[in-house]
Order: sequence, then C-alpha cells, then structure tokens
Amino acid sequence: MSYPPDKLLRMRIVVLAGGIGGARFLRGLKQAAPDADITVIGNTGDDIHLFGLKVCPDLDTVMYTLGGGINEQQGWGRTDESFHVKEELAAYGVGPEWFGLGDRDFATHIVRTQMLGAGYPLSAVTEALCARWKPGVRLLPMTDDRVETHVAVDVDGESRAIHFQEYWVKLRASVEARAIVPVGAEQAKPAPGVLEAIAEADVILFPPSNPVVSVGTILAVPGIREAIAEAGVPVVGLSPIVGDAPVRGMADKVLAAVGVETTASAVARHYGSGLLDGWLVDTVDAAAVDEVEAAGIRCRAVPLMMTDVDAAAGMAERALALAEEVRA
Amino acid sequence: MSYPPDKLLRMRIVVLAGGIGGARFLRGLKQAAPDADITVIGNTGDDIHLFGLKVCPDLDTVMYTLGGGINEQQGWGRTDESFHVKEELAAYGVGPEWFGLGDRDFATHIVRTQMLGAGYPLSAVTEALCARWKPGVRLLPMTDDRVETHVAVDVDGESRAIHFQEYWVKLRASVEARAIVPVGAEQAKPAPGVLEAIAEADVILFPPSNPVVSVGTILAVPGIREAIAEAGVPVVGLSPIVGDAPVRGMADKVLAAVGVETTASAVARHYGSGLLDGWLVDTVDAAAVDEVEAAGIRCRAVPLMMTDVDAAAGMAERALALAEEVRA
Repeated sequence: MSYPPDKLLRMRIVVLAGGIGGARFLRGLKQAAPDADITVIGNTGDDIHLFGLKVCPDLDTVMYTLGGGINEQQGWGRTDESFHVKEELAAYGVGPEWFGLGDRDFATHIVRTQMLGAGYPLSAVTEALCARWKPGVRLLPMTDDRVETHVAVDVDGESRAIHFQEYWVKLRASVEARAIVPVGAEQAKPAPGVLEAIAEADVILFPPSNPVVSVGTILAVPGIREAIAEAGVPVVGLSPIVGDAPVRGMADKVLAAVGVETTASAVARHYGSGLLDGWLVDTVDAAAVDEVEAAGIRCRAVPLMMTDVDAAAGMAERALALAEEVRA
Repeated sequence: MSYPPDKLLRMRIVVLAGGIGGARFLRGLKQAAPDADITVIGNTGDDIHLFGLKVCPDLDTVMYTLGGGINEQQGWGRTDESFHVKEELAAYGVGPEWFGLGDRDFATHIVRTQMLGAGYPLSAVTEALCARWKPGVRLLPMTDDRVETHVAVDVDGESRAIHFQEYWVKLRASVEARAIVPVGAEQAKPAPGVLEAIAEADVILFPPSNPVVSVGTILAVPGIREAIAEAGVPVVGLSPIVGDAPVRGMADKVLAAVGVETTASAVARHYGSGLLDGWLVDTVDAAAVDEVEAAGIRCRAVPLMMTDVDAAAGMAERALALAEEVRA
C-alpha cells in the first residue's frame, strides 16, 4: 500500500453504499472529511419498476439524505411528503400498495423514467438528478445495466424467486431466504467512472450497509471486486452487526441465506482479507477483534451506533484513521 | 328518420364531447334522461405527452365530471388536489410548468401510461379507468390511434406549428391561429364501438363543445362524419356561441382560423344540414333562428347557460325534444 502521492491533493475516498446505513455514514464522512473528494458507488440491485416507473431506492436514499431532502424519522423517502398519487393508484386498484411512494418522491421517478426512455443511461440520469440535490459527493450507480436482486423463498412448499423489495418490504423478511441471486449481475458492466474511481482512490470504505444485498451486490458486478482488491490502497469496513444483531434492517435473514453467521467477525471474514484490510466492530463486540485479526484483517472496536451526524462522523474518522494505520 | 323501433327499449344516445362544456352537458343529460343508454365519443386530439406520461384532458374531464371527482370551480382537474409532484418536477428543472397537473390527476396518467406501455389500446385503458369512476355513460375515445391537434401560428414572423395545448393553455390563444390541423387524423380509425354506437343510436347530440378543436376533431376521423350523416336518426346540436361570443374558452380564435364567424348561426351552417338536423341557440340569439332554418336546420331558441346541473338538464331536455320534433 502506498501513501497518497501528494498530501496536498484532496483525499479521494470511494464508498460502496446501500441505502439508509450507507447514506447516514456518508453524511458523517462528509463532516469528518470536508475536503475529501468522495465517490459513492451505489447499489442498484434493489431497483424496481413500479407503476411503469423506474425506482432506485438506494441511490435516492443517498441523494435525498446528503441533499437535505430525506425524511429523517424513517430514513428513506422525502420530508414534508404527501401520498395522494398512491391513494389514487389504490383507488384504481393498481398496486402494489406495500411500497410507500410519496408524491414528491414520484417526481424523481417520473424524471428518471422519462430520461431513461429518452435513451440516457442511469449514470447520466443520476448525475442530472444530483444537479438539483447537490449531495456533495459523486454518486455513481454500480452499473447502467439492469441487475435485480431476487430472493428464493418457499411458498406453500414450492420454491419461488421474488424481487428483493417484495421479500424485504412486503414480507418484512418473515419467510426464510434460501438464496439471494443478483439476477443480471454476471452480464453487467460497471458504470462509467466506477473502475476509474476505484483505481484512483486513496481509501475505499464499506459503510455499515448490508453485506449481502447492498455491498455484496455491488461486488457481484464483474470487475468491481477485482478492482478493489488490486487498488493497492486501504480498504476499511464498518460492521453493520452489533452485538450479534443488525443495527437496523434484517441483515441476519440474508446472511443466513449465504451461510454467514450474524456476528461482526463473521461478516469481516465473509468479505475476507483478500478484499478487506481493516474492520471496525462496535465496542460491545470487542471480543471479536482477535478473531478478525487472526483472519488477517486489522480490527478495532469503537462505538458504531449512528445516533446522529456527529456519531457517524466519529465512525468515519475512526475508519479513516484505521486506513492510515493500515497504510503505514 | 324512423321512430325508435321499440319505445320499451332504452333510448340510445350518442354524444360527441370535448372537455368542460361537453362534460357539464352530459351531467345534465344524465339527469334529463336517467334511463337512456349514453355513449360518449370523446375527443383525443388535445391529448399530450407530458413528463413521459400520456395525458387525455377531454376524456378525463368527462370521466371526473360524471364520476364526481372534478374540481367544480375550474371545470377540469381533480377536487381536493395538491401539486407536490409538479413542484418537484419544477425543482428538477423539468417542464412544462404551464400545464397544471395535480398529484391525484398524475395517478390517472400513470395508470394510463403503464397500461398503454403494456399494449392495451386507449379504448381499453379508458374502460379500465371508468371502472373506478363509473361515469354512468360508455366513454369511448374517438380513436385508438394518435391524433394531435396542431395550431399554425406566426412567431417572430415565422410560421410554426405548435401543439394545441401550447396554443390554448400556455399562450391562452393570444396569437392568431392561422390553421388548425388534426395531425394523424387522416390515418386514424374510429375506436372499437364508435361506428357501432352511431349506427345503433336513436339520437345523436353535439353538446356546446368547441366546434373546431373538439367536435370538429372527432368528425375529422375518417368514417365518423359519414356514419353520423347516414345514421338516419336526429342529429341535434347546441350552440357554444351565445351573443356572438363563446360561453367559455376561446372558440372565437379557432373559428376564425377555419373562416367561420363567431355566431350561433355560423357554427350551425359550418356543421351544415348534411350533418345537423336540429340546432339550439340561446334566447339572446333568437334572431338567428330564421337564418339557421333557412339553411335547412330546424332551430329553437332556449336558455343555453349551464349555470348548474338543472340548467344543463333543461338544455338536454330541449335538445331531446327537438330531436323528437325532427323525427316526427
């Protein structure tokens, strides 16, 4: 690992982000490293077509959170939101009703769908949407190709593959996930700028996002995992598992599907030392530090609860500090 | 003209309708003839694609008005409406801003666009939307094909064709219309059921809709004018011009473009005795009765201001009475 070529240059940080956890971590990172040049590679595996519109939940959560438009309480969707479009769609008998799209949010999907229909790739559309939101990071979809995370479940004794959002939002992960399949990932190409950003990065961070359906899906796009492994810069992650349970969401359900225990240590070893140089676990998981280090990954126990922006910034500082420690 | 074959059968009425005037007249007609079987052939020439969505202003105005969802004050759009989607689209810099789509209204266009994208023709989509609104009439678009009314105007000394909505809503008909062209009409086919409804009608009515860009556009679809002329049943119209001015809208502007004076009599003669058997003018235009009758069209002067549903019902009764007079 080489030290940044010129300390005078802005530090270039690449972050692989899912939705809420990634977005809140990024807000902390921006506070912790206000001069850094941050590129976010966003998960698009949970994108879904609803009502003929293309919805990109993770990209939007990052964009709204960093752009000041997020609903803080729920962590996704827009602030000051109304639900008249959804009410009317339901009155027409048009579903699904389980996906909560608000009126302001609809506008984003309408603009996106119109631009995609006009032939712009998702990366260009995302850039156009960000021209309004000014998230303060460069937000790239992992790919311009269609990748859709499907979950294999048993329904009435029969195996069936359902869209991740149906599993996650409609079923609240209440049935056992037998497998997680990022359909289309094998044929997908990294979006323009993704491999370049990784190659030019000084540090690569995995925020406390879901290691299977968020970071894992991004890594499933051929070329991305390899580029990170070969970047020759510190790669540091933060555990989304604290005290043997997900901090939020239902990561335990999808970890089980890929045969990984719901522990901070198991997730680090799942990424592996071929990819990960450093790993932060929560102070309650301090006992896991030795196990992670035995797997060849530098590990520190620090507070990992993103209770507010300052807490998230503290986590980002610790991650950057661990990256420098690894680099040295 | 033959009397209805069996008085016990429900009277079958076909109405050619534009937007607000047509919709309000239809509400009166339903009150005046509650047992009638009413088929509405709706104008689709002012349909427009906005934000990638298919908007059918006249069909929707009829559907919302008869289904109890209309904004009574403005005569178009939904009651209890909000404008968050539009606000957000404007924040993205995506226009046009001059077309007032509300959040509840957006849902209609989203459902329609999704169904059209899935391959359903507009007539099937309209039927599906009406399954919710239960307008109490059978609402058919004049055609499933794309017809778009364009208006030739001079801008900075150059002739330019603009979409009717741009002329009507954005420019408020403030520039001279040199020509009105229903682009695509020549190649359009009447929607399924249109010619059958005309052939089986006992009475055909032209409500006080715009004779050029509403009724005129419907008549421009090859086969419809001929079917009406050959139906062998009374065809009765109501003048949208009262006291030499349009009751609402800017019909005078588009009448001038087709060389027709803005008078109740001139509009009747524009339709002509080959099409029209009876014509109602307002009491203030009683002096026009002789002139219309001289053109071979039975004419009566009655109150034609649709101040409320009862007034509209009174007009419908007069129109049906004139039809029976013509038939006898």
